[in-house]
Formats: sequence, C-alpha cells, structure tokens
Amino acid sequence: MLATHDAAGLEDFCDAMHPARAAEFMEGLTAAETWEVLQAAEPTERVEIFEYLDGERQVEILQTAPPEETCQVIARMAPDDRVDLLKLIDPAIVERLLPLLPSEERRDITRLSQYPEGTAGSLMTTSVARLPESVTVGQALEEIALQTKNHETIYYIYIVDAENHLRGLITARQLLMHLGTPDENVTDLMQRDLVTVEATDDQEVVASKVADYNFMAIPVVDHEHHLVGIITHDDVIDVLREEAEEDAYRAGAIAPLQETYLNTPIHTLSWKRGMWLSALLAASFLTVYALQSFHETLDAVKWLPLFLPLIVSCGGNSGGQSATLIITSLTGGDLTLKDWWRVLRRELLMGLLLGAWLGAIAYMGALLVVDGPTPVDKLVVPITLLLVVTCSTIVGGALPLIFKRLGLDPALMSNPFVAGIIDITGIVIYMSICWLMLAEI
Amino acid sequence: MLATHDAAGLEDFCDAMHPARAAEFMEGLTAAETWEVLQAAEPTERVEIFEYLDGERQVEILQTAPPEETCQVIARMAPDDRVDLLKLIDPAIVERLLPLLPSEERRDITRLSQYPEGTAGSLMTTSVARLPESVTVGQALEEIALQTKNHETIYYIYIVDAENHLRGLITARQLLMHLGTPDENVTDLMQRDLVTVEATDDQEVVASKVADYNFMAIPVVDHEHHLVGIITHDDVIDVLREEAEEDAYRAGAIAPLQETYLNTPIHTLSWKRGMWLSALLAASFLTVYALQSFHETLDAVKWLPLFLPLIVSCGGNSGGQSATLIITSLTGGDLTLKDWWRVLRRELLMGLLLGAWLGAIAYMGALLVVDGPTPVDKLVVPITLLLVVTCSTIVGGALPLIFKRLGLDPALMSNPFVAGIIDITGIVIYMSICWLMLAEI
Repeated sequence: MLATHDAAGLEDFCDAMHPARAAEFMEGLTAAETWEVLQAAEPTERVEIFEYLDGERQVEILQTAPPEETCQVIARMAPDDRVDLLKLIDPAIVERLLPLLPSEERRDITRLSQYPEGTAGSLMTTSVARLPESVTVGQALEEIALQTKNHETIYYIYIVDAENHLRGLITARQLLMHLGTPDENVTDLMQRDLVTVEATDDQEVVASKVADYNFMAIPVVDHEHHLVGIITHDDVIDVLREEAEEDAYRAGAIAPLQETYLNTPIHTLSWKRGMWLSALLAASFLTVYALQSFHETLDAVKWLPLFLPLIVSCGGNSGGQSATLIITSLTGGDLTLKDWWRVLRRELLMGLLLGAWLGAIAYMGALLVVDGPTPVDKLVVPITLLLVVTCSTIVGGALPLIFKRLGLDPALMSNPFVAGIIDITGIVIYMSICWLMLAEI
Repeated sequence: MLATHDAAGLEDFCDAMHPARAAEFMEGLTAAETWEVLQAAEPTERVEIFEYLDGERQVEILQTAPPEETCQVIARMAPDDRVDLLKLIDPAIVERLLPLLPSEERRDITRLSQYPEGTAGSLMTTSVARLPESVTVGQALEEIALQTKNHETIYYIYIVDAENHLRGLITARQLLMHLGTPDENVTDLMQRDLVTVEATDDQEVVASKVADYNFMAIPVVDHEHHLVGIITHDDVIDVLREEAEEDAYRAGAIAPLQETYLNTPIHTLSWKRGMWLSALLAASFLTVYALQSFHETLDAVKWLPLFLPLIVSCGGNSGGQSATLIITSLTGGDLTLKDWWRVLRRELLMGLLLGAWLGAIAYMGALLVVDGPTPVDKLVVPITLLLVVTCSTIVGGALPLIFKRLGLDPALMSNPFVAGIIDITGIVIYMSICWLMLAEI
C-alpha cells in the first residue's frame, strides 16, 4: 500500500486495528514510511498509534518530519507523555515546534516540565474531567459526553469549586446508576473524603496508594489543594515495572540503565558496571590486608586456604539473604524501623540455626574430602561457620535498617555490598579461630 | 460506640469513609469487634470494608462468626477474592458455609477453584458486564445502569452471541459519547479485534498484555472463545508487585515467602533459606577440592592465599552483574534467545574492558599493600583478573540464556548461583596462572 501511495487503504488499516497492534505492525518500516502511514490515518487514530510507537521511533519522526505536520500530533498527545518526549528531542526542533502549538498546550508543557523526574507531577496528566459544584446528574452526563474526546479517563470526574479547589469525586458508574433521576444534584452523590497525592510526592508513594486502594486514577493537588492533574492506573503500572527493574539492577550492583540492555552503548554500560565493581574491589583489599596480618597463622596451618573461599561465600550468601529479606519488607511496607529489635532477635536465631546446620554439613564434607588435618583440627570449620553465619545474618539484617535510619535508600545495602562487608568479617573470624585452636600448638 | 452498642453511630462511621480507610481504622479491634462494627454497616458497605481487611483478619472472622451471618458477605464478595479466601479457611467451616450460599455463587466457587494458582483463571472474576449483539445504545445504557451494582467494572462491556462467544467490546465512554443517538446499534460501534487471554495462561502473560496495551481490564476466554471472565487493572497491579517481590527473593537465593517477613514462622524461614544455602555450600566443596589438587602450587607460592578472596569475589560480582542484566532484559521482553550471539559478543567485550580496568587497579593495590613478592610476580594478579572477569561475564551472560533455552526459569540463575559456579572457575584460573608463572621457577 505504501508503494502505491494507497491512502484509502492505509486509512482502513489504521482504523481497523487497536492502535497498539498497528504500532507493532509498523515496527519494520522506516521513520519516514511510518510517518507516511500515519498521515493517512484519521487525526485521532494518528495520535493514538503514534503514542504506542516506541520512544526512539517517536524521536526519529519528530526530528525528521516537518514541524508543521508533527505539531498537530504533539498538540493532541497526552500531556504527560508529550513532556517526556520533548525532553528527548533536539532543543532546536522543540523551539520550532512550540510556537506552532495552541497557547494552552504550550503553557501546559512549560508547567509540566518543571516537575523533576520521579515525582507525581512528572507522571500526571493535566487533562482531567472536571465539573463545577452546582451541576445535576443530567447536566453532568451531557457535559461528560462532550468532554470524553479530550481526556484520558472520564470514569472519575472531579468536582471543583470556582477557585479549582478539589471538592469531591463522582464516578461515571454513579452517574449511570442515577440515569433515572437527572435532576439530582451531583454534590449530594459525590465522595468527599478523597485520597490525593501532592505534585511533589515521590512516584513510589503514588504507586502504593493506587495499589492499596485499587483506584483507577488518583487526583494530584498542590499545597493549597487545587486540582492540578490526575495519574491513571496505566502510569502506575509503568512505575511499578520501572521500580522493579531498578531494584533488580541495584541487587546486582549495577547503576540503573535508561535504555534496554542491547541499546545501551558499551561505554555507558562499562561505566555503570565498572564504578560499582571498582568500589567493591577497593573494599576487597581489606581482605588482602587482613590475611597478610595473619601471615604467621597462614604459614603454620598449611591447609587453611582450602576453606577460605567456602567460608567467605557461605557468609556472603547468608548475609545477602538477610539483607534481601529486610530490604524487600521495608520496600513493601511490611516492616518499619520500630521493628528493629524483633529483626535482630530473629536474625540472631536464624544465624545460629543456619550456622549450626551448615557447620554440620561442612564438617562432614571436610572429613570426606580433605586429607591431612586430624578430625579434631577440622572442627575449626564448623565452629567458624557457626560464628560467620551468625555474624552475617545480623550484619545483613542490620545494615538496611541503619541505612534507612540515616535517611539513605536501604536498597543500596543489597547483596554484593553486604557480601563485601561480610567477607572481611568472615576472614578475621576464620583466621582468629585457626590461630586460637591450631597455630599455638 | 462499640461499648454502647451504638448501631446508628457505627453505621454512619462505615458510610462516611472510603472502605479502605474504614478497614484501616479497624485494625486495632479484635475480630469479634470488627464483625460487630460490620454488622452495623449497610450490606454493600459491609462487603466493601470486609474486602479491604487484611487476609488474616478475614480468615479469623470467618472462623469465629456464625456462618449464617458471614455467608451473606461471602455471597457478595468479588468471585476471585472469595475463592482465594475460602482456600485459607478450615475445610469444615467451608462445608458449613457453602450450602448457605445461593446456588449460582456455589457453582461459581467450584468452577474458579479449579484453576491453579498463577494462571489467568485464578485471577479472573466471573462477574462481567455483558450484552447481547442486538442491543441499541439506549438499551445498553439502561441495562448497564441496572447491572452496575453487580460488577467490578462496568466501563468495559463485552458483547457476546447467544452461545456466549466473545464478539466485541464497547466502552462506557463510547456509550456516553453516543448518548444523543440512543437508537444506534451497539454492534456498529464495538471494537471487534480484541486482545484476550486464555484461562490457562500464566499470570505474567496477563500482566504484560494489560501493561503494554494500557487496558483497564482484559477478557478471559476458554479454548472455544467463550467469555469466562475478566481480569481488572487492580489485579494486574497485585501480580506485578508479587512478581517483583518473588524476583527479589530469588536474586537473594531465598524461596519466595507466602507471608510477611515478621509473620513467617522461624522454622519455615530457616527451611526456605537453609535449602538454598545447603546447595550453595555443597557447590563450594568444589573449591575445596580444586584448591587441594593444586597443593603443590599453594606450598610453593606463600602469598597466593592473600588474593584468593579478592579474585573470587571480583569474579562473582562481575558475573552476577551480567546475569542480572540478562535476566532483567529477558523478563522485561527486551531480549530474546535469538540475540544470544549479540549478548555473548557484548559480554566478551565488557569482560575484557572491565577485567583490564580492575586488573590495573588491583595491580596498583598489590604494589602498595603486599610485601614479599616482586613486582613481576605480582603481575599474576592483573593477568588473573583479566581472565577471571572475562570468563565471569560470559558465563554470567550465557547461563540465563541456557536456562531459558532449556525451558527453565532464567531467574534461577541469579547472583548467588552464578557466583557459586564462577567461584570454581576463578580458583582454577588463579591457581593455573600461579603454577605457570611462579611455581616452576
């Protein structure tokens, strides 16, 4: 259809499919071809399909197609997505685009760009279905039918006073239920006790409120309780996915990526990985230093290095488990700082139990695998493991709590960092016990 | 109000607040007190508040309050939540409850209980707003106004034929837009190209479809395309949170918990942690065995053990990073098995870059901290690190892909397991290089 410039055929294609599918189908085309297809679509569909294209493709189109054409798509895009997109585009092109937009859209873009990434303000859309306090059910339905093309959701309709203070909420469902009594006043039906977020709140606060209350959208207000926007359930889903990905990266000691793995340039990736690896390596030098100060014990007990990696990794794994449990519980809101005493008591008990169990296995393993030391000498291994595992679970449980208490993100104390800190403890314990039990003899 | 049995006051309390807030306020009460408050509420509010109580409290109430009273709440609960709740309750009580329910609800419970946890069927609700093909916009609006009390969402209305085959979807928004033309036929307006899931699909498939298409709900069909239920956006949010938590636990080598950290009994927790720690410890014995087979090198190169923990942890960290990146990209759908060659090429390059960089730092560290070996001898450290880090990034990148290829969950190859496998590689490389460069001399 593209080859023959069959505009009618292209229009039908865009019309018949869900915009997300149409966007998927166009993945194989070039930016110029995609734009040609979009030009054939109805203006409403054009915008919808455009919004489902992936970010890079959107940027490419805006950078190459004439601003006189693209400005119409920009003007109709959801306000929150539009701002995010414009941030990625060559400023020179943005400067040519902005004057082509209606003044209302232009002001809206300026306002939304002020909220920093990760706040409620940066997620929200300013396009909200709102009604004054005085309307009746019948008027509300008529008004909403008129507004429906403009807003992301019309299922939550907010009632505001003359100064745009948020007064209440009525759902489309409630309006439909009162279809039979069109003269009823909306203020008599509306919910007044609303859960809101402030535009400066963190996006995690937004996500947890929407998730806890099963909302379809949450209103965003400023300090004086003016209604400034709403955040819808699909934006919350995006936040949850993004945060889960960030947490996964943090747990693997990688600075979060902005792009997909394959699209991140090698030099960015090596920086995001290298900086943490360098820090962990620097911390590792403490283990070199500790081992060196025990050189007499190392000389005296020949078989000592055999268990060194085993003991270090066992400590790291059990401490990492504790840290993961505490970080996940803190993030999920199941645990607060007030519980610190219960956490430490539990981790002490867990450490003793796990340490005794792992010590027993390791002793059996040592008896079977290692030649040389006597069975009594080998008791060093289980005794060390009991102490190392107990220390590790306590340290692994305490570090995220301490970070939280200091106002830092507890997720920074994830697996590799806890392990780094625990490595040195494990080595000192192992060497000390060897020295006490064996070296003197 | 409870003390004076002020039923009117309690009713007002339940009526005035959002049910989620009312449920929060009642957290301090006992199960019996909560039930007394709920008895005072309107039947609709009673169910809504009950649904927001936490799981344990719900179970407690159902186990203690008379089935004749609680059956009314059960009958009105959302079908998906109801089934999940009944699974947690003493079977003897469920047997007393079931006969008290209307036959339709009873059949529904039996049907939903058949889908295994984690499938679309176990998430869906069977309460769907549906309309026959022949209705007009006006009839649809009237019918929906009648149905609105019964369904979780009335904003997506599904059109089915006489045999309940899914034919199309019309949104409440579309109906409202055509308020002016009540005689228009709904089938002329409806969307026909619907994205659906099957009842046996995995919940991750559901979550990614709803998230990708920004749906408010997705219809669930059986093999013959009969409409059997829908899954709404709030259930998808719960799935995303649950999956993120599970992934975090897996990355920390803990079997996922059913309860919160503080509520999980010590014996359950020690099992969920101990089983993986035992497996990792068993794998660690390979390191003991490897070190023992190099005992001559160990004897000859006195300072060799000093760098053992540093090299092992550096390999583990860089391999863990690669595994985290690949697992996250596979889960997020940014990467497929077809990209294996690109992944390995990237990881090889990353490994060489990071290995060279870390080797350089470690060599400087070795020159500063360690006494004894000559600067030339110390070249063992950077050479080993270059090789270990390169091997680790390739192994860390390849293992999740291999697991995926074998049909296993790539997330099983998270940090601690990759580290366990890499430890042994790192030791063999270190010992071999020491043997080649130093021991012979």
